[in-house]
Amino acid sequence: MAAWKTLEASVILDCRPFLTVESHRVELPDGQVIPDWTWIRTPDFVSILAQTDSGQFLCFRQEKYGIDGLSLAVPGGFLESGEEPLSGARRELQEETGFEAREWIPLGSYRVDPNRGAGTAYFFLALGACRTGDCLGGDLERQELILLDSSGLETALSAGGFKALSWTATVSLGLHHLDRIRRSADGRH
Amino acid sequence: MAAWKTLEASVILDCRPFLTVESHRVELPDGQVIPDWTWIRTPDFVSILAQTDSGQFLCFRQEKYGIDGLSLAVPGGFLESGEEPLSGARRELQEETGFEAREWIPLGSYRVDPNRGAGTAYFFLALGACRTGDCLGGDLERQELILLDSSGLETALSAGGFKALSWTATVSLGLHHLDRIRRSADGRH
Repeated sequence: MAAWKTLEASVILDCRPFLTVESHRVELPDGQVIPDWTWIRTPDFVSILAQTDSGQFLCFRQEKYGIDGLSLAVPGGFLESGEEPLSGARRELQEETGFEAREWIPLGSYRVDPNRGAGTAYFFLALGACRTGDCLGGDLERQELILLDSSGLETALSAGGFKALSWTATVSLGLHHLDRIRRSADGRH
Repeated sequence: MAAWKTLEASVILDCRPFLTVESHRVELPDGQVIPDWTWIRTPDFVSILAQTDSGQFLCFRQEKYGIDGLSLAVPGGFLESGEEPLSGARRELQEETGFEAREWIPLGSYRVDPNRGAGTAYFFLALGACRTGDCLGGDLERQELILLDSSGLETALSAGGFKALSWTATVSLGLHHLDRIRRSADGRH
């Protein structure tokens, strides 16, 4: 399969740093041209499932403008300009929770909108998390740090308690990875 | 926690039906006012992990303008105006694959961007899928329907083969749900 080609791009809305909208002139593999394909630029971000050595997962209970009622959430945030995803993940975990982690496992990078861009999400599983400082806060919304054990996290996930796409994806991919680690260890015994 | 209040909303970019951008005047619980909170409207959509009775999962290998190279994907698409998520999921599965499913299990609804909207994703697990007709195609990108068994799906998921956020979330949440069904059945025996 041949990819679509971008022939031209022009900015049609500039709300930097949070959003830029472009109009792309795009050529399809069969030669057909789409004159005005809408393309969305929003910042790339990280999202982290962090677990302590005693098996507790770091979550927030928080409100967000785009979400009805309270939601569970996981640590994360926008990457700074030029920042590597792993560095951004370490920084966000520390700023938001006051925790650092011993082991960082990348869980992949994912396009938010496969048609129109909207940034890339980088997910991480952070093991051996422990508190090394205070959290800085800084988001406009209030949020409360809570620790959930494995059973509590699975129940909340199944109940749809993580109400944003990136949060529920991070938790379910992280649990999937932990399950593979466990099964692989069981297989060796 | 008290929610943020929308005091005013005005459209600043109209690329309907795919995108509208609004500027919101928002009041925080402490009385602080944000005069220009960017709010993104994109269509709500469904995404489906469908399994046949012989344990095969319906996936696509496809290209998308927003994704580098080929990606695995799952069936899904935009809801039509006023359409219920379950009806939209049945329609998309049939249109995209020619399959219908016996049992539909909702896996929750998730805000794409918890700060700025960007639509809501509705995920479903569809069991007992079988072919009842032809697929209609219709998307601009070429896509190839492939069937993966459980092990192939898990390996692809872990390798980051589903390169869009909603696809990887649907697969991991669906597998998580199937695992809970299996463990609950094991517990009864």
